[in-house]
Amino acid sequence: MTYCVGAKLNGGLVFLSDSRTNAGVDNVSKTKKMTIFRSSNDRTFVLLSAGNLAITQSVKELLSEKGVEKKLWNSENLYKIAEIIGDCIRAVKKRDGMSLQKEGVKFDCSFILGGQIKDHEARLFKIYSAGNFIEAEADCLYFQIGETKYGKPILDRVLTTEISLESATKCVLLSMDSTLRSNVSVGLPLDLFIFDKNNPDLFKYKYIDEKNSFFIKLKESWNEHLEEGFNKIDNFDWNQQDLPINKILIEKS
Amino acid sequence: MTYCVGAKLNGGLVFLSDSRTNAGVDNVSKTKKMTIFRSSNDRTFVLLSAGNLAITQSVKELLSEKGVEKKLWNSENLYKIAEIIGDCIRAVKKRDGMSLQKEGVKFDCSFILGGQIKDHEARLFKIYSAGNFIEAEADCLYFQIGETKYGKPILDRVLTTEISLESATKCVLLSMDSTLRSNVSVGLPLDLFIFDKNNPDLFKYKYIDEKNSFFIKLKESWNEHLEEGFNKIDNFDWNQQDLPINKILIEKS
Repeated sequence: MTYCVGAKLNGGLVFLSDSRTNAGVDNVSKTKKMTIFRSSNDRTFVLLSAGNLAITQSVKELLSEKGVEKKLWNSENLYKIAEIIGDCIRAVKKRDGMSLQKEGVKFDCSFILGGQIKDHEARLFKIYSAGNFIEAEADCLYFQIGETKYGKPILDRVLTTEISLESATKCVLLSMDSTLRSNVSVGLPLDLFIFDKNNPDLFKYKYIDEKNSFFIKLKESWNEHLEEGFNKIDNFDWNQQDLPINKILIEKS
Repeated sequence: MTYCVGAKLNGGLVFLSDSRTNAGVDNVSKTKKMTIFRSSNDRTFVLLSAGNLAITQSVKELLSEKGVEKKLWNSENLYKIAEIIGDCIRAVKKRDGMSLQKEGVKFDCSFILGGQIKDHEARLFKIYSAGNFIEAEADCLYFQIGETKYGKPILDRVLTTEISLESATKCVLLSMDSTLRSNVSVGLPLDLFIFDKNNPDLFKYKYIDEKNSFFIKLKESWNEHLEEGFNKIDNFDWNQQDLPINKILIEKS
């Protein structure tokens, strides 16, 4: 499987992706889910992918074809680029969709696209397998693709548009940690990318593998804090049993 | 949907269930997912249910039929009771399975069964829609049914067989809290039941609704501890950018 997350804060954008891919548990491999497009001239945007690897690779291949790539570098805004990616998804569906259906394989892919073009506001999109897409807003400020559930609670608790890029980075890493613990089909290494809106030339990228001392420490500290917090919470107050038990209690007559 | 969890500790068993049911988001209702069977003579066991309500209600109806109920009160051990429930599931499948299939509705149900009979060891089972079942062991000490993912990370972090019943109670309540936050198809009130192995007469039951001051406080404290722990963690160490970015960076040529 895969886990990717992208968030849009007032200060910019944060992206994190894993790199495990599998065709069954007996066929596990590594592949990058993050691609960064950059023209120092006027644009930086990031594409994260999840789903059937044959589909997502083909979509990315189409994006690199000359006519299409030219459009990526010249599109007026990120909405247009989301449209182009949607078109590429539809082109792959046209080619492979029917054959996959005959084999009983779902046409499954999804993408997160985020970045900034010229001096426009930074934008973040989630693109579905039908080629349609939605955009992040203040009340819906992050997108996940792949194995989304284990890592969602911490995002819901912590992320707000006001949070700093540094805090959002911690948050997505903890979200990834929960996912890594609970789903073996999500795995290291990770690709982490942040885009500072106030300084678009200054993007930051980090490759995080098993030896990354920060990620090791982050996981340990978080575990310790959770344990400490857990122990501080009072035990349940069993002062008396409740009556509604009668509704669900079957006693031997 | 539904979220139910049952855990088997050295000290006994803990069960927690929500009570939301829905047939689409425009048809949300409440129903109990927990049933407690008790004969002060020799047995207490709990059944939690998830899935299609028409199926789980029918299974429970079959369990209350005279011949079957008699078996529940007389079975030698909990394994036999898991078998009886499996048989009831298959009976409902025989009656409804084909019709559901014709409507494109999956025959979807699952159960958690746990308790103690006579002076045997307490046991915990998860029963699938095919009527087959698995039993909890030291390395697999809890079962979830329904919306399982949001609440799994905290169980994986905290639950061990050595943990006290009181700590396990806190843990399943926090697991429920994460699930309630992230999936609106899981909802209050909750049914909480613990079974103390060393004192099988002393089971404890609590009905937890929106007004339950302990649960309100638990959620608040946990949130505070998480926030505090989160803030204590160092920010990511961006001392230098990493080289592998070349592998995923596409620059305008």
